[in-house]
Amino acid sequence: MARNFHPDAPPLQIAQWLNTDTPLTLASLRGRVVVLEAFQMLCPACVTHSLPQASKVRQLFAAKDVAVIGLHTVFEHHDVMGPMALEAFVREYRLGFPIGIDAPSGGSIPATMREYQMQGTPSTVLIDRQGRLRMSHFGVLDDIALGAAIGQLLAEDMPAGPAVQVSNEAAAAREAGIACDALGCRLGEGLSA
Amino acid sequence: MARNFHPDAPPLQIAQWLNTDTPLTLASLRGRVVVLEAFQMLCPACVTHSLPQASKVRQLFAAKDVAVIGLHTVFEHHDVMGPMALEAFVREYRLGFPIGIDAPSGGSIPATMREYQMQGTPSTVLIDRQGRLRMSHFGVLDDIALGAAIGQLLAEDMPAGPAVQVSNEAAAAREAGIACDALGCRLGEGLSA
Amino acid sequence: MARNFHPDAPPLQIAQWLNTDTPLTLASLRGRVVVLEAFQMLCPACVTHSLPQASKVRQLFAAKDVAVIGLHTVFEHHDVMGPMALEAFVREYRLGFPIGIDAPSGGSIPATMREYQMQGTPSTVLIDRQGRLRMSHFGVLDDIALGAAIGQLLAEDMPAGPAVQVSNEAAAAREAGIACDALGCRLGEGLSA
Amino acid sequence: MARNFHPDAPPLQIAQWLNTDTPLTLASLRGRVVVLEAFQMLCPACVTHSLPQASKVRQLFAAKDVAVIGLHTVFEHHDVMGPMALEAFVREYRLGFPIGIDAPSGGSIPATMREYQMQGTPSTVLIDRQGRLRMSHFGVLDDIALGAAIGQLLAEDMPAGPAVQVSNEAAAAREAGIACDALGCRLGEGLSA
Repeated sequence: MARNFHPDAPPLQIAQWLNTDTPLTLASLRGRVVVLEAFQMLCPACVTHSLPQASKVRQLFAAKDVAVIGLHTVFEHHDVMGPMALEAFVREYRLGFPIGIDAPSGGSIPATMREYQMQGTPSTVLIDRQGRLRMSHFGVLDDIALGAAIGQLLAEDMPAGPAVQVSNEAAAAREAGIACDALGCRLGEGLSA
Repeated sequence: MARNFHPDAPPLQIAQWLNTDTPLTLASLRGRVVVLEAFQMLCPACVTHSLPQASKVRQLFAAKDVAVIGLHTVFEHHDVMGPMALEAFVREYRLGFPIGIDAPSGGSIPATMREYQMQGTPSTVLIDRQGRLRMSHFGVLDDIALGAAIGQLLAEDMPAGPAVQVSNEAAAAREAGIACDALGCRLGEGLSA
Repeated sequence: MARNFHPDAPPLQIAQWLNTDTPLTLASLRGRVVVLEAFQMLCPACVTHSLPQASKVRQLFAAKDVAVIGLHTVFEHHDVMGPMALEAFVREYRLGFPIGIDAPSGGSIPATMREYQMQGTPSTVLIDRQGRLRMSHFGVLDDIALGAAIGQLLAEDMPAGPAVQVSNEAAAAREAGIACDALGCRLGEGLSA
Repeated sequence: MARNFHPDAPPLQIAQWLNTDTPLTLASLRGRVVVLEAFQMLCPACVTHSLPQASKVRQLFAAKDVAVIGLHTVFEHHDVMGPMALEAFVREYRLGFPIGIDAPSGGSIPATMREYQMQGTPSTVLIDRQGRLRMSHFGVLDDIALGAAIGQLLAEDMPAGPAVQVSNEAAAAREAGIACDALGCRLGEGLSA
């Protein structure tokens, strides 16, 4: 089954982990789609868009299918984005997923960021179930586009089966009378016949 | 390759088409993922959420991969949501995708809506490349979740290949100096070495 | 006290009222600031911005101070925006304030709209406590700007007194410990001393 | 002219100013309405709501009428919200208004915050043209409500005159033909007669 070639995702080089007792490796996440969200705590688009988006991804998908990892890739203002500042940030913003502090590399760009050739923050990286690097997007990423990329990777290398359900017959949800609310307009009992 | 059984999507029963010169059939869309957006022009959640979402889906995906179709499934206020009113609505809201007016069925629920057992509006229906009904969601649907479902159906039955790209080496985008804007924080020239 | 001259607001010319048992006149609203929201039910910016904004104004201010009135000023698609269509629209969108259907004038522009020289929909008109026309804004209007205009008119011709409160000493709201949530970061008990 | 009594706003106690060459005092701002936005750089509601709101207030009103001042009132995580961190934050978030760092008081709550009896961050404080404390709101504050409070204070103690304009006759804006866009639906030339 000749698939196109995709390179293996480089190993994560992490100086310190937050929100996890044991260090994570991509090897240990094999079998899952990994969403790696590279950010800086003083990057406005990260704070207002990408980190909330990562939190939403974590809630939407089963942990056995999708792993969300934050990567603190500081390449500016190093003095004021150290581990203590990040810990306070993570607590106040209630980020729940594991976050690795990208390891120093000698220059201003940390090691993992350099290895992945990221162009800045936010960068959203997708790694497939086989550990291959499949997407690296710099900048704000649309929700539908991110969802589609995750969905595609979820579907690959899957034992045949339904991940998309038909939730058609939830007849229990039908209520008497017609009513529109923020969710939509429901059919009433009398009408559904 | 034993996939789970999924029923074929019932044919569309359309009284009149807007935004297309030739009537559409699911058969003619075989090979594409179909997003069928059932709405009423007087349904607030359709107007503020689902129709803009459908327009965005249409922009994000190539027409050869994903077809977006609106379905006007009037089950209340029939007198004021006739074809002329819909035409004005479609023009003012600048909806660009083909829209079918669901055919009358004798009762207040139109024919396609009844056949698909939809519970109300908005309902978002996904049909796979083989014409099978794969999802039917009533109510507001999250962008990431919709994207994931579309992405999964896109990945099925595909000739092996990359739909997810690595846009890593867009070195041209790198600019001199560090700057954060609404898009994010870029690496500067001096730093990327 | 020589104020600048402002013209009296022309009388409303209304063919039919919704959401009120008795017809409204500007004379009967003297003493209140009137927010007159001119809209068409098929005008997207009206539906997504101005009508929700008018509903919010109605909730924020006391009815004795600010009156919110909708004005259905149809100047296009007359056939499909008649009273029955408007009634369905008002019900589905749950608009709670009185709405007048602008009276026909012989041309396509209805009478009140023509008299007020409105340029289109949405138009937001402010009338002061003395019945004078003080603002007429065509197009989407910023919330802060609208609030400021209402606040200014509220302050005029007022018996001296405080409308702006100092809600400083709500000590009851203070909770033990420091916590940040969507509302903000509170002082804890131990810290407030 | 017996107005209700309002206390004078306590003096600002500032350890260091950003975005201004000369230290500000409330006395020097007499004659203007002052919007004092108390925040912490690690307070999510400040970052996503109140600071953008303060920036918008600064843009909407003339500087001679309304002064916007930020106040960094750190009462937690002192170690990681020092002046250097704040400077980086202010630069990355492109805050343009003067920001004072609230002076230490011996306890964890800084001096101005304590004097004003603020309950946490964000707190939005309004001071009238005469230097009197008129509002102190803890938590997210609605745009219309903030606008109304500012508008009211602007109207007080004003020489009689129009701040609210009638922008009715912008005939130049009228274009041929009817068209709806994000701004609204305009009257066409032919119709306005």
